[in-house]
Order: sequence, then C-alpha cells, then structure tokens
Amino acid sequence: MPLFCNLALTLALALVLFGVGPGQAAPAAPLSEATQACLDCHNEATPGIVADWKRGRMAQKTPAQALKEPQAQRRVSAKDIPAGLMQVAVGCAECHTGNPKSHADSFDHGDHQVHPVVTPADCAVCHPQEREQYGRNPMAHARANLLKNPLYMDLAQQTNGVPQAAGGKISMQPASPAAEAESCLYCHGTEIKVLGQQSRDTGAFGEMSFPKLGGWPNRGVGRKNPDGTVGSCTSCHTRHQFAIEMARSPYTCSECHKGPDVPVYKVYQVSKHGNIFYAMHKQWAMDKVPWTPGKDFTAPTCATCHVSLLADPGGNVIAQRTHQMTDRIWVRLLGLIYSHPQPVSPETWKITNADGQSLATTLDGKPASKFLIDAKEQAVRQKRMAKICQACHAQGWVDGQMARLEQTIKDSDAMVLAATRLMLEIWRQGLAQGPGKGSPFDEYIERVWTQQWLFYANSTRFASAMMGADLGVFDNGRWDLNKTVRHMHDWIKVRSKK
Amino acid sequence: MPLFCNLALTLALALVLFGVGPGQAAPAAPLSEATQACLDCHNEATPGIVADWKRGRMAQKTPAQALKEPQAQRRVSAKDIPAGLMQVAVGCAECHTGNPKSHADSFDHGDHQVHPVVTPADCAVCHPQEREQYGRNPMAHARANLLKNPLYMDLAQQTNGVPQAAGGKISMQPASPAAEAESCLYCHGTEIKVLGQQSRDTGAFGEMSFPKLGGWPNRGVGRKNPDGTVGSCTSCHTRHQFAIEMARSPYTCSECHKGPDVPVYKVYQVSKHGNIFYAMHKQWAMDKVPWTPGKDFTAPTCATCHVSLLADPGGNVIAQRTHQMTDRIWVRLLGLIYSHPQPVSPETWKITNADGQSLATTLDGKPASKFLIDAKEQAVRQKRMAKICQACHAQGWVDGQMARLEQTIKDSDAMVLAATRLMLEIWRQGLAQGPGKGSPFDEYIERVWTQQWLFYANSTRFASAMMGADLGVFDNGRWDLNKTVRHMHDWIKVRSKK
Amino acid sequence: MPLFCNLALTLALALVLFGVGPGQAAPAAPLSEATQACLDCHNEATPGIVADWKRGRMAQKTPAQALKEPQAQRRVSAKDIPAGLMQVAVGCAECHTGNPKSHADSFDHGDHQVHPVVTPADCAVCHPQEREQYGRNPMAHARANLLKNPLYMDLAQQTNGVPQAAGGKISMQPASPAAEAESCLYCHGTEIKVLGQQSRDTGAFGEMSFPKLGGWPNRGVGRKNPDGTVGSCTSCHTRHQFAIEMARSPYTCSECHKGPDVPVYKVYQVSKHGNIFYAMHKQWAMDKVPWTPGKDFTAPTCATCHVSLLADPGGNVIAQRTHQMTDRIWVRLLGLIYSHPQPVSPETWKITNADGQSLATTLDGKPASKFLIDAKEQAVRQKRMAKICQACHAQGWVDGQMARLEQTIKDSDAMVLAATRLMLEIWRQGLAQGPGKGSPFDEYIERVWTQQWLFYANSTRFASAMMGADLGVFDNGRWDLNKTVRHMHDWIKVRSKK
Repeated sequence: MPLFCNLALTLALALVLFGVGPGQAAPAAPLSEATQACLDCHNEATPGIVADWKRGRMAQKTPAQALKEPQAQRRVSAKDIPAGLMQVAVGCAECHTGNPKSHADSFDHGDHQVHPVVTPADCAVCHPQEREQYGRNPMAHARANLLKNPLYMDLAQQTNGVPQAAGGKISMQPASPAAEAESCLYCHGTEIKVLGQQSRDTGAFGEMSFPKLGGWPNRGVGRKNPDGTVGSCTSCHTRHQFAIEMARSPYTCSECHKGPDVPVYKVYQVSKHGNIFYAMHKQWAMDKVPWTPGKDFTAPTCATCHVSLLADPGGNVIAQRTHQMTDRIWVRLLGLIYSHPQPVSPETWKITNADGQSLATTLDGKPASKFLIDAKEQAVRQKRMAKICQACHAQGWVDGQMARLEQTIKDSDAMVLAATRLMLEIWRQGLAQGPGKGSPFDEYIERVWTQQWLFYANSTRFASAMMGADLGVFDNGRWDLNKTVRHMHDWIKVRSKK
Repeated sequence: MPLFCNLALTLALALVLFGVGPGQAAPAAPLSEATQACLDCHNEATPGIVADWKRGRMAQKTPAQALKEPQAQRRVSAKDIPAGLMQVAVGCAECHTGNPKSHADSFDHGDHQVHPVVTPADCAVCHPQEREQYGRNPMAHARANLLKNPLYMDLAQQTNGVPQAAGGKISMQPASPAAEAESCLYCHGTEIKVLGQQSRDTGAFGEMSFPKLGGWPNRGVGRKNPDGTVGSCTSCHTRHQFAIEMARSPYTCSECHKGPDVPVYKVYQVSKHGNIFYAMHKQWAMDKVPWTPGKDFTAPTCATCHVSLLADPGGNVIAQRTHQMTDRIWVRLLGLIYSHPQPVSPETWKITNADGQSLATTLDGKPASKFLIDAKEQAVRQKRMAKICQACHAQGWVDGQMARLEQTIKDSDAMVLAATRLMLEIWRQGLAQGPGKGSPFDEYIERVWTQQWLFYANSTRFASAMMGADLGVFDNGRWDLNKTVRHMHDWIKVRSKK
Repeated sequence: MPLFCNLALTLALALVLFGVGPGQAAPAAPLSEATQACLDCHNEATPGIVADWKRGRMAQKTPAQALKEPQAQRRVSAKDIPAGLMQVAVGCAECHTGNPKSHADSFDHGDHQVHPVVTPADCAVCHPQEREQYGRNPMAHARANLLKNPLYMDLAQQTNGVPQAAGGKISMQPASPAAEAESCLYCHGTEIKVLGQQSRDTGAFGEMSFPKLGGWPNRGVGRKNPDGTVGSCTSCHTRHQFAIEMARSPYTCSECHKGPDVPVYKVYQVSKHGNIFYAMHKQWAMDKVPWTPGKDFTAPTCATCHVSLLADPGGNVIAQRTHQMTDRIWVRLLGLIYSHPQPVSPETWKITNADGQSLATTLDGKPASKFLIDAKEQAVRQKRMAKICQACHAQGWVDGQMARLEQTIKDSDAMVLAATRLMLEIWRQGLAQGPGKGSPFDEYIERVWTQQWLFYANSTRFASAMMGADLGVFDNGRWDLNKTVRHMHDWIKVRSKK
C-alpha cells in the first residue's frame, strides 16, 4: 500500500506541480540532428519562437507516434511519411529545410538550405488531405479573386489610394504596395518575392547573409509563396505552438472576419453561442479530437460548424472534418452586391455575369447561375450544417431558424436593390459620374451607396445566420439599410431641384 | 497513516484527474423513469443537449437535496415541491411534461405528453419567488411594451420595413414576421403559437409527429408562451446546463444590451469593473451562493449590482437577491426620448403623457409623473444600490459618482431638447413631414434626430452610470450629441434658404 | 515512506484544495498595529476592499522579504525602506497614513491621520524608480497637457458643452465640471481638492467626520493630488489587489485606449497578437518576473512591448523594465493633427509650432522640430522595440513591418493634408467661420474634418503599428479617410454654387 501510495503520489504531484494540461509541455520527442543544430543558435537568437514551439504537439510527438493514434483521433492525414521524419519531432529543420529546390527563398544558413517561408506544400508532407481540401476553398484563392477582378480592384484603389486636394479639386495617387500589403492583402495574401540577398551583422553570430523578401511579413490566406504554392496554413494554425485550441478559438477567425464588411465575429460576440463560449470555455476541452458537443464544449465556435470533426459521446460521427469550409455552406451571404448561391469554383474571379462583370449577380440582381451551385447541391450542404445544429437543437428549432435566414436574404437584397435604383437614377441624371464615365466608388454619394451592400446588408445577413440580433437592427443593420435609402433620396432632392 | 494516506490519495486523485470544478460533472442524481425514457433515445437524437444537461447542477442534485441547503445557500425558493419530483434529478421529463393541459404545445411523444417550450410556470414549481419577482420587471412585459405602443411600433416598422425605389420615389413594404422575430422580438419576445402538427422522418426513430410552432425559435425576455405565460427564464439561465456562472457573466446580458440604443455591455467593457473582470475572473468563484465581494470576486458583473444575493465574508447580507431588476434602479436612463424616474408599473405601454403618447415624457421633456415612482421611492432604490457600491468604495466616492450621473442626466436631456427643437422647427417649416402628416421616423433628417436620443444620449448616460468614459465622449457620446445638433442646423441652412 | 507520503500528501492536498495559484491567498504577512486597527472596523465597513487586498502580494509579503528577492525578480526598487515598514504587510495604514502633513486630505480618523487619496509619493516609498520613470512620461502630465493647450480645450468644450437651440439658432453652455470629470478628465485626471469637512452617520460606527473632496472619484493618469503630486499608480495597478497580471492585461489599457480617437485596444483585439492572447492566456504565467516570451506567454500584451522587464529562458535581459513608456516609442502616431517624432519633454503643452499653436505640427504639416526628438534618438528607441519583436520574429520580418508603418505614416498624413486643404478653402470662402472668426470645431463641416485626423488617421496608423488590418481599412480606416475627403468636397459643391 505504501508503495502504491508513493507511486500514485508521484503521479498526483506531477500532475499538480507541472500542471500538465492542454498546450503545456509534455516530454519532448527526440530531435533530428539538423533541428538540434538550429536550436543551438536559435535558443539565443529567437528564444520566443523556440519556447513557443516547445509548448506544442509537434515538439512532443513524432510522426510515427501520430500515425499510431486510432483513426478518429489522428491529426495527420498522410499514409506515408518519409522515413527520415518518422522518429523525430517536427522541428525547425523538418519544416524549414524540405524541398529546397522548389523554394526560391532557400538560402545557405549554417550547414543547411533554409527557407523562411513555410508553405502548404511543406505542411502537406504530413497533412495532404487538409491541404487538398483547403485548395478547393475560395480562401486559398483570395489573392487572385481580388486582384483579377477589375471592379474589386477599383474599390481597393478608391479605399487605399491617397487623395490630394488643390484648388478645390480632388486627385488621387495610387495606393503604395505597403498600403495594399497591410490592408486588403493582409488577409487576401501578398506575393512573397525574393528580391535579392542582404548581409547583416547578427551580433552574437556575426555577419550573415539572408534573402530579402518582398511582400513580407504576411500570412494571408491566399498568399503567393516563393515555391509557387498559394495559401498559408499559419493564418489559423498560429506559429509556433500550432495549438488546435487556437485554430478552434473564435478569436483566430476574428482577425479577418470582424470589419463592417464581414462582421461575422461581431455577430458571434453577441450571439447566445458566443456568450456561452466566453462565459464557460475555461471549463471546456478545446483540444479533443474528435470533438464532442455537450461534453467537450457546450456551444459552437466558428470551427465547430465550419471545419471540425464532430462525434457524439458514443463516437458516432456528426460531421467529418473539412478544410473546404464551403462544404457546409450553401449560400454566399457576403453580397457583392447581392447574396447568391455558393460559386461552383473557388476561383470566383472567373465568374462573368450577364453584364460582363466579374460578379455573381448583375446590378439589378440577376444571378450568373451557371457559375453557381444548383438547388440540389445547396440542399446537400444545408443538410450537412443542419445535422450539426441538431446535435443540440430539435429539428423544429433548426427549420425555423433556416426559414428566417431565407427571408432575411430576400429582404436585405431588396433593400440593396432600392438603394441601387437610386444610384442608377443619380448616374442617369448626371449628379455623379458612374460606370463608363468614372469609378462607381469615387464620389461621396457612391460611397454612401457602397456601404448599403458592403456593410449593412452583409451585417444583417450574418446577424440572421448566427442569431446576433444587434448587428441586424441598429448596429449596421436594418436601421442603417433604411436610413441609407432616405439619405440618398434626401441627397437627390437637394441637388436635382436646381 | 497508510490507510488515511490511501483514502486521501483517492480523493486527491479524484479531484485532480476528474477535475471536479464549477460546472463539471459531479455524481449524478437518480433519474425518474420518464427522464430515463427520454434519454434512451435523446442520447442519440440530441447528444449535445443531453451532455450539456449532465454538466449542470439540476442533473446532480435532487430537489430534496437542494431544500436541505442552509437558507443562504439555497437556490430553490419553493417551500413545497411535489413529492414525485423530490427524489430525482430535474431532468427532461421534469421540465418538459408538467402541466400538459395548460400547454398548447403538448404532444404525444413516446409514452408522454411533451411540450417543447418550457415556461416560467414550469420553472416556478421550484423557483416561485424568482418568477414572481421577474413578473414585476419591465423585461417580462417587453413584448407588450413594444407592440402596444404605437410610436415604438412606428419606429420598428421604419427600421424593419423593406423600402422600394421607383421613379425616384420611396415606398415601403411592411416588415415580415420573420424580420420582426429576429430583430426587435429576438429580445422582446415573439408569440409562440401552435400552427398545427407535422409528420417527420426522424431517421433512426422512424416517422413521428411534432407540433409546428410559429414564432419559434425564440427565448426573448417577454416571450408569449403556449401556456399563456410571458417570459423566458432561459434568456439568462442558458440551456441545458443552467450554470449560475453563466447568468452571472456579463456576456449573457450583452446579448440584448450591446447595440447603440442600449450599449450597456460596451460601457462595461471599457470600465474599470469590466477590466478587472476580464483580467482576473478566471481566479474567481463565479458560482458561490451567497456571493462575497472581494473574496469570491473582485469587481462586479451585471448580476452583482442588479440581481445577486451578496454577503460579506462574515455572512452578513449586503443585498438580497432580486429578479425584479428595477428594485435597485431609480432612474430610467434609456431615454425615449428623455430619461425619467422608473415607471411604477412594469407595463410601460399603459403610460400616457400630457400629449396622449405612450411615452414617459412629452417631446419637450415634461414627465408623466403619475406613472413614475416618486422621489421617496427613488431614494430607497438608490440607497440599495449605494450599499452595494459601498462594499468596496467609501461613501465619498459613491456620493461623487452619483452626483456626476445626476448632472449627466440633465446635460444629455438638454442636448436632446436642443435637437428636438430643431426637429420641431423643421416640421414647422415643412422641410419634413412630422406627426399628423407622416411618420416622425421615415425621413433622413428625422433619422438623424432619432439617433440623438436613441443612440448618443443613451450611450452618454450609461457611460456615466458605470464609468465607461469612451462611450460618453467620442464613441457615440457627447461628441456625437453636439455633432448631431450642428448637422441638423447645417441641414436646415441649406434647405430653408431656398 | 508513509511519513514522506503523508507530508507530500498534505502538500498535494493543500495545493489542490486551496488552489494556490496566481493571485490567490498565500499565508499573510504580519500586520502593523495601525493596519490591524483599520481592519477591525473596515472588515465590516468595506468588506470588499479588505478581502480584495488580502488576495494581493502586498498582504502576503513584507518589504523585508521583497528586498531579499534576487535583483531580477525584485518588484521594489527602493534601496532603503523605512525600518518601521520593513517587517509588516503593506496594509491600510502603510499607504493611507504616511506623510500626513503633505496630504491636504488627511483627517482624524480613529487614532490616525488618514488620507483617502494615495499618491505616487506614497507608492514611491518602496517604488521610487517606477515613480521617477513615470514622471518622465506624457501620461503623468496628461492633465496639464490638455488644460494648458488652448486648442485642445476648445475641442473639449465643443465636445462637452451643452448646446441650446432657439429660433433656429444654436448657442452653447459651457461644460459642467461633472461632465469634464467623467469625459476628458476621467483619463487625463481631475484635480482632487479638499472642499471642507462633512459629518456623516456611518450607521454601525456612529457619526464621523470626513473630508469633502472635489474632483473625486478619479484615477486618471495625470490626476492632481492633494499632496501636490501628479499621477495615479492605480490607473493601471488596480486597487486593492494590485496584481501584476492585471497591469499586464490588455484590458487595463483599454480603459483609456479604446475610443475612436485612440483605438489601440480595438487594433489589438483583431491582431494576431491579440488573438493568441485571448485564446491561450489561461495557460500563461501572467505574473512571472522577469517575463519570458514563449515560455511564460506566447504573444505580447501591451505591457510586454511598452513596459515589462523581459528575459529569455536563460535569464538574459531582452528589455529592461520601464515606466517611461516613450522609452520604446520613437514616433507619435496620435496625430494632432499630423503624426510626428516623440516630443522631447513629456509636458507637451509647452510645444509651440511656427504658427504659435501648442501643436507639434502646423496645419500644413510643418513639424516644431526643436521640441521633438531627433533622428538619432528615434533610432535608439526603435531599436529597443525591435529587439523585443526579435525575440519571436526574424529581423527580415521586423524590418518589413517597420517599413510599412513608415509608409502608412506618410500616407495618412497626406490624407489629413487633403482634408485640411479643403477645410482651409471652406474657411477662405466663408462657408464656415474658422480661426480668427470662431472655433475651428463648432460647425458641422469642421467636425467632419476633425474626424479625419482625430479618428481615421489615428486608427489607420495604430492598425499599421500593431497589424490590425480592419482598423486600417473599413473600420474607421482608409475607407473613411477617403470618404471624408469626398464628403467635404461634396459639401462645398452644393454650397459654393449658390
């Protein structure tokens, strides 16, 4: 008994004193020689990165161990992982030295060819399925979807360009690459280009040469990488701990989904789901795989509904993990300028509407149907989402919620149409210079109109989808949709009388 | 000693390994046969609900155990609880099958008459005092207070209606029930009506019949229920864990108290109280009853000041628990259009001012005094609140704070009056069509005026009450109150010259 | 073995059952007789304060113990602490009875001369270095910097004054002291004046006399205190626990740095740094001294970059602690009306630009260079900050980030210049009454212009500095900077035609 006592005590004390919990340091996996060489200097050169990495699972498990997990718990999707990687931690060298020839950013550093920019191709060595799914996601194409759409680029320039006033007249300097990189492309992704090499005195480690990178730093979802790939897994899987609880936290998504154009996180914040998360998540198991509603958590985060593998307490799958977020989304609430069924291809810049614009609808709302998923596919995706809702809600509840969203889509589109008809009238009367004569975004009243669809209609629809009432009423919601129509009407009245 | 050691060890290990803490699963209470029958299917049909419920106190304690708690710690207010409920967990059947005849939503389901909508009458079996107090609260009457007030309904329609533009003219389609349900009535409460029965293939459980409910889903505070009651305890006591730490968390209140019309949560967020909560609450005992300032928590949440039973470390009561939140509130800061003493009756739609409107003040600020509490009752309520402040603040601090609030009420009302005088002038000059000729909310300049009292004056007053400076200055505060007056003046200048 | 077992068990159980963790009650230090006398009544009179204080380090360690900590961990900077304080807890009497003669707010209370307002001079008994550094900080002079700058005071009056409308004309009542105290001076600091004595029935303790304080309550950073000092340590070191994790939490800074004029906290909220904090900080050691990036925390809070002593896991110092926040800041992003190098003196009201205004730049952007730090000092400070970044980021990343900020400063200043040129044109044409003829802030269009530099330019620059893209684009960012220029242009067009 004393012996048992002693053993158990050791365990109890270990648990108490070392606080082994989610994300905390477990015994480390063996290191490759190459990673050990990195750490020999980087323990001192970038101590924060090293300590952060040590907290993570990739420092604690070898790929061989990861592959031995039962299928449902497994977090790697590769069937074959190169033998050289199998028995060591996934450390500095494992991610930053692979495929040196495809990486234009590779450079001689110590005894290795190192590349600063880790890309989806690097992650895909162990996570090929996730990479493949993510590539079918509009987010992976976010850069091209913006840059190759002339209308979007006009809006971007009218946002980021630098206005100048002289003699009462306004002119416009184009946006600088720096401004683009930290505004639109912060999320959509820059292009990382190797501009040359530069030598630098690193202090303790002497003079060293590094590649000079354009478009850096960036971790936008559609980043164009020096190995020719697009995307950045670290947008959500934050370096260098790569904790799954981070990717599952709503905060992560908020980085790109909080502004007035896409206030998804703001809606979540005032929703019942969000309120439960904020109040209770310190008691949850944010890192369990699979993830069990009610047991591991009591309200969904963004990842729950859009990405995660969910199972009931008996292990029955509720939803398969997907990194193609549109798998569970049937309609595109982000109206540019109206909402519409999800596009068939993630490369939305290839859409052409009846008026020849790269938009899924025309200015009066006609959808470019052949580029959009059909009713059958919409139903399939809606059903996938409904099944997740039904883990915690009876079907009557879910049906009622879906019906409201459908009505809100109609109402908000009608409210955009009303403002757009006034805009067309303004252009017709020559009170502002519209398409054909100038940018549709460069005059004051055009910006008032733009906010109707870019801010208020989107806010109202997202509020409906996730039950965040405020955002659909007085906080950039229906109040503002109605106010804008009167604002435009009032503007016309003063000017057209003359 | 080894024996003690072993026993203690088991305890220590149990505590460590099973992480028994707030809201975590303790040993379950025995289940009624009826609840067991529910669980037999619902473990699979709605696993999230079941697992969520198991985390809560109602799954872990029988009413008999709850009644044995010392008075101060007790969370049930009933003196007699039906014998059949006493020895079992408060499970599915206990809440969803009682009073089947009064529930129009009851339907045959398995061997029971089940009603989906649990109402205050159901909760009152164990919590009669809370129900009774809450019924004296304006929140319990939030639906009627909105729907039976013609001016409010006009504002609601001007918010949720769908505008249409043709030939440069604006017309208006009335708001759909779906839009109302997810905007105003999301918080104020829908009416849940049984529209009929519908048959549904439930998959694993075959074809079954369910009631089809109108106004569903909803958990608004003033919901009209199928058993004729009003209100919804689950607005704050979130299903199905019903954790007291959830109701006490400020997040819960934010669901309906964050928009620009009532930015209470936004004020709390930047207040010192809020900042302490966010930084430190992971170390607090959010579930202790009674709740002890300084010991269980070091800054108040919404519940602390407005609802909770508070005691000092010696057990002396600082404030009695109340579910009539107005017990501790003397003035109504939500100005429609001016602030005023709290109404005597929670049914505010019954108020009539000197101009015959269902408002507590006239347009020029005259209070409908006979519908409002008198100075003596105001003093009683203010003193109740001050006593809570004084748990942590000396009286000089509290007096200073109260004096500032009083001044801010005067200033903000004067700023609303200035804008209202301009609005009256606009109507007088015929620059907009006011009362008698049209809605006071349907034109652009009327909406500018509306924001003065609905957004900025409210924001400034709430900021004063809870020391959240930003919201009283540049973030919808005094800056905006002053700006709106100039905006209206500027608007008149351009138009009245002609 | 059983004996060891038993001892260890006691320890394990103590740890588990009493949850000794950050901020939780450790064994208390001995109390002075004077503090014991305070507690005898205040346990009952203000139980919340007492319980809160007991949670803190000052209740648990004597100054003698604190001085024995190794230099790097030490939190007191005094070399000599008066002998009478050395062996007792830092309790009520230690802070509230020192230097009674210098404290105009001292009053006879029990057997002691007590002062309600604890000031930097009181804290400096143990923390002289922190006080001295903080005094070199513009924040310590925030009150005078506002009150002695005529332009700022005009803006304050145009914000807090109470407008009145009669006969279509607007007049203005000056702001009340109460309004000033809870708006600008809430953060900048009031003046605490002893207005007299007042007698009060304290209930259990009978009739007592207290000083009546003007400007109270307040804990603004530049508060003018009854002992002649300025500042308030409790702005950030929140009473009465004074937990270092509170001062290090971003919430604390949000109290004064969240509004649209200085949306620093809002930027942090959507930044990657912020997202990591919110998702992961429950696993962090928020109270370690020194603080080790990657190990104790995995993303910076405000304090990390601006205040804290940072060391790597080997104990090498990354950054020395500073309470002069400008030590690590080279440029002033808060543009009034343009950004500029940090002022040499923290007393910014002493700056005079070429046009004789107390502003660091003229209206057309010319800096008052002799009052601003030179390029060399800017480089020193930037390097200090960069060293902190480099704990977790390679230099290429940091260089790229710094270059973008530099460009954004230029762009945003140019966008302010464009709006300002339009404003000058408006004044020239007599469409509004500008400097010389009236306040530059009292008309509608002047307020539109003010928002350009006070809200949107600041937001864009802070977003750039901390990578919070939204705030630099659509959420009071570049979109709004461009929109305002068009708004002003549109406003001129309608009016100048007549």
